[in-house]
Amino acid sequence: MRLRNIPGSREYIAQNDYVVHDPEQKKGKWHEVFGNNNPIHIEIGMGKGQFITSLAMQNPNINYIGIEKYSSVLLRAIEKREEYEGDNLYFLRFDAESITDIFAPSEVDRIYLNFSDPWPKDRHSKRRLTSSEFLARYDQFLVKDGYVAFKTDNRDLFDFSLEQVTLSGWQLRDVTFDLHHSEYVEGNIMTEYEERFSSMGNPIHRLVAFREKE
Amino acid sequence: MRLRNIPGSREYIAQNDYVVHDPEQKKGKWHEVFGNNNPIHIEIGMGKGQFITSLAMQNPNINYIGIEKYSSVLLRAIEKREEYEGDNLYFLRFDAESITDIFAPSEVDRIYLNFSDPWPKDRHSKRRLTSSEFLARYDQFLVKDGYVAFKTDNRDLFDFSLEQVTLSGWQLRDVTFDLHHSEYVEGNIMTEYEERFSSMGNPIHRLVAFREKE
Repeated sequence: MRLRNIPGSREYIAQNDYVVHDPEQKKGKWHEVFGNNNPIHIEIGMGKGQFITSLAMQNPNINYIGIEKYSSVLLRAIEKREEYEGDNLYFLRFDAESITDIFAPSEVDRIYLNFSDPWPKDRHSKRRLTSSEFLARYDQFLVKDGYVAFKTDNRDLFDFSLEQVTLSGWQLRDVTFDLHHSEYVEGNIMTEYEERFSSMGNPIHRLVAFREKE
Repeated sequence: MRLRNIPGSREYIAQNDYVVHDPEQKKGKWHEVFGNNNPIHIEIGMGKGQFITSLAMQNPNINYIGIEKYSSVLLRAIEKREEYEGDNLYFLRFDAESITDIFAPSEVDRIYLNFSDPWPKDRHSKRRLTSSEFLARYDQFLVKDGYVAFKTDNRDLFDFSLEQVTLSGWQLRDVTFDLHHSEYVEGNIMTEYEERFSSMGNPIHRLVAFREKE
């Protein structure tokens, strides 16, 4: 995604009630933030937020946290969120490299990764959100029977992810190289990018990675 | 592989001591054929037999059965086998579609599939040796902690296989899209085809499918 610097975006974000500004302070206390004990599902790299906002609207009994590194796109997600009156959706501006600083063991029930940055250079492979390094981080705070659901149009990133998941001793299910023409398409919520990309006829790849069966 | 009809090949095969001619009669009795209770590993579609013959030479305490549909290539495997004096390697000319007719439950400890026919047309997908239909067959005679090891250079077949394995509720490990440049290359035995293909710099894909951990 091309990122523009939008004047005033940081200030706008700073004033929004649904942006958590001190996420490290919430580690182990997210259920207090939401005021209930419903499951917590997170999206890392949510971009403009269409995916997680749709999920939050559909599932009022699940708590959602959308995490985005860049304030310019987080701004768009906040704008979208203003149309939604539910309180089961919070946003963070945060770099996922330090994600274990904000979630305690078993605090998260599901992780969504959608069209993550491919970091195409080999020397940047550890930055990919499906690398064994990141899986080891997720392992620290994802419930034992939770899972990571990952979608991408980037074939190289998908291949890398399949390798890393098995290398890390995680298991795979619901693997498809063409989500929109697979049996798994039912209930699929598209991201902004996915709508645009798949309308050109290009396939979306999807996998689910888990450690223990639900 | 281009197959030529070699005059006399059927007769030659019929006379060879290491070709089992009535495999259905051996169902449940393969340990008697080998005269011991060592594990049995099979290769389905062994072609000219370099892979399984090398394995048999390296591992005298494992019993090997190479299965090939076409007599013209089976002939080449038999010729190769004549250089080997061990008795832990038998061959069959047999169509794998009926493989459950020749192995009893838990009779086989490992299955190798190397550069299997991709059957590229959709309507032939059930003939692919990694289809859910074939996995269901393997499930009937593979020991619970056994596995299927599959190598191919055919990307479409590999993708299909990843999908089918997870669809069938099997698990994956040691997935790599470039076996020869992966950590799994140690101990890899190349087939004739693999030597030729990889020498051109093309990647070999490999997966291991299993139901329960060893």
